[in-house]
Amino acid sequence: MTPPFHEFDLIQWIREQCPDSQTDLLGIGDDTAILQPLKDRELLLATDMLMEGTHFTLPPATPELAGRKALAVNLSDLAAMGGKPHSALVSLALPQSKGPEFAKAVMQGMIDLAQEFQVQLIGGDTNSWQGPLVINVAIIGTALQAQSVTRSGSTPGDWIFVTGKLGGSIHSHHLTFTPRVDEANRLSQSVTIKSMIDISDGLASDLFHILDESKVGAQINAAEIPISNRVTLDHPQTSRLQHALSDGEDFELLFTVSPEDGKRLVSQNPLQIKLTHIGEITQEQGAVLHHADGSRTSLKRTGWEHSLSGQKRND
Amino acid sequence: MTPPFHEFDLIQWIREQCPDSQTDLLGIGDDTAILQPLKDRELLLATDMLMEGTHFTLPPATPELAGRKALAVNLSDLAAMGGKPHSALVSLALPQSKGPEFAKAVMQGMIDLAQEFQVQLIGGDTNSWQGPLVINVAIIGTALQAQSVTRSGSTPGDWIFVTGKLGGSIHSHHLTFTPRVDEANRLSQSVTIKSMIDISDGLASDLFHILDESKVGAQINAAEIPISNRVTLDHPQTSRLQHALSDGEDFELLFTVSPEDGKRLVSQNPLQIKLTHIGEITQEQGAVLHHADGSRTSLKRTGWEHSLSGQKRND
Repeated sequence: MTPPFHEFDLIQWIREQCPDSQTDLLGIGDDTAILQPLKDRELLLATDMLMEGTHFTLPPATPELAGRKALAVNLSDLAAMGGKPHSALVSLALPQSKGPEFAKAVMQGMIDLAQEFQVQLIGGDTNSWQGPLVINVAIIGTALQAQSVTRSGSTPGDWIFVTGKLGGSIHSHHLTFTPRVDEANRLSQSVTIKSMIDISDGLASDLFHILDESKVGAQINAAEIPISNRVTLDHPQTSRLQHALSDGEDFELLFTVSPEDGKRLVSQNPLQIKLTHIGEITQEQGAVLHHADGSRTSLKRTGWEHSLSGQKRND
Repeated sequence: MTPPFHEFDLIQWIREQCPDSQTDLLGIGDDTAILQPLKDRELLLATDMLMEGTHFTLPPATPELAGRKALAVNLSDLAAMGGKPHSALVSLALPQSKGPEFAKAVMQGMIDLAQEFQVQLIGGDTNSWQGPLVINVAIIGTALQAQSVTRSGSTPGDWIFVTGKLGGSIHSHHLTFTPRVDEANRLSQSVTIKSMIDISDGLASDLFHILDESKVGAQINAAEIPISNRVTLDHPQTSRLQHALSDGEDFELLFTVSPEDGKRLVSQNPLQIKLTHIGEITQEQGAVLHHADGSRTSLKRTGWEHSLSGQKRND
């Protein structure tokens, strides 16, 4: 028979895995964590909730990969602001039937990624229930530059870039992707990033967040969209492009820079991963897809969005 | 037929309900929120997850009360540190079958409490699924004093106080309680609070957090424990006392002060609610309950705790 294992035992175990390494903090073990803010640094704050059956299924995901993903998606949000991760708060709803080893495995996956990105787990809330696994992470970061990179800084003429390759993340990449924190920081050192977002819902959805917030439009060269090998070659090319545009959960960076900075990035990619110039920001709103045969189509706002009334958006 | 209602519609609706009121923030509408930290102020951070069926049931709770409680429990954590609320991040897992009015009602209950306590909702994550309602709030506050009040500052001889009355919260109080933010701040202005916690798991559980972290013990006068009228008078007195000690979710403040400050609080209560001197901190560890008949019993560490393996703690 498994020995009894309780909330406070898990918290104690987590404390042991996460030695205090930052002297400006009171971490796990009080009603709140205490953070001594770095003077003259913007704080960046985000949160994401992952639910079993929606954002992952067990299997093929392991509890470690589910825990990893819950932190990774938050790191991706920080990357999109050009930020440096600092600390995280973690809430768990654990399926009672799965027992303590499952709970530890979820946290181990998260702790391993936290250590890789020097994130300290400073607090949280541990619960168990009859329902499926739910993990919430709230992340705290600091801006590396005087100002963080938002979605609203694009102006007409900007070149649009994307890191990595897109599409087909659902097979396993969404569980194992590397949040582009280091890449965002390296880009910030090379050029002035005018606006940026991470591709979580799909390029054809997330591009519109930049366009809406910046009050601009875009033209995208379809042939330049980097399609991942994860999208099977058995599909016709138009179908493969559609996957790259709307599969979502790529967690690559979509950003714009001035044409001068754009030329610099094209002539010398500062990253160790692919970097592609896929189009330009335009004065006229909306997004137009330019095809290799000279034809143009309107880029439709697609990609993943949670319907709150059981109906799927189709505009 | 209900018109389609989606994640971005709900986010837009929330943005409209929450006009930016603090100039040091970039709120809802980017990958992260941006917070310009107040210089020389400690930041306080906490998170709590509420799950339908565990922390509330619908009914008797309404969606508004569920949303309210999710913020209120976090405010209670901030109160326990002597902090001032600043902003919050909200994650939702919404039952798809309940539709958009349900989602708005959850948020309305939270927004109303947020405005009462001047908390700005600066970001979040909105999801829907086939499962029950899950709400996570991560709260950000600032310390009002040079140093926040932790659980670890008690020393032998301290007087132990509790605000309000305890027990029977399950009937409805746990949904409608007032987080003791103002009371904590008023106490801080009158005396030096040496350690403090909010009573979420029950006095007989939460007292031990102070004792453990401060490495001290306590003697508690059983007859002084303020038992709420919510605990039915039909029970015998020992059973009523047990409810007050271990029901949990009172969200009152349990704190210690020096004997001098204690005498000041007894002679003039600075609060508009009941304030009771229930015992003293002792050198020897453990907690002893002193009864009116002169007998003494060991106070057992009870109260609510999530079992992660389907077995209940009974030490």
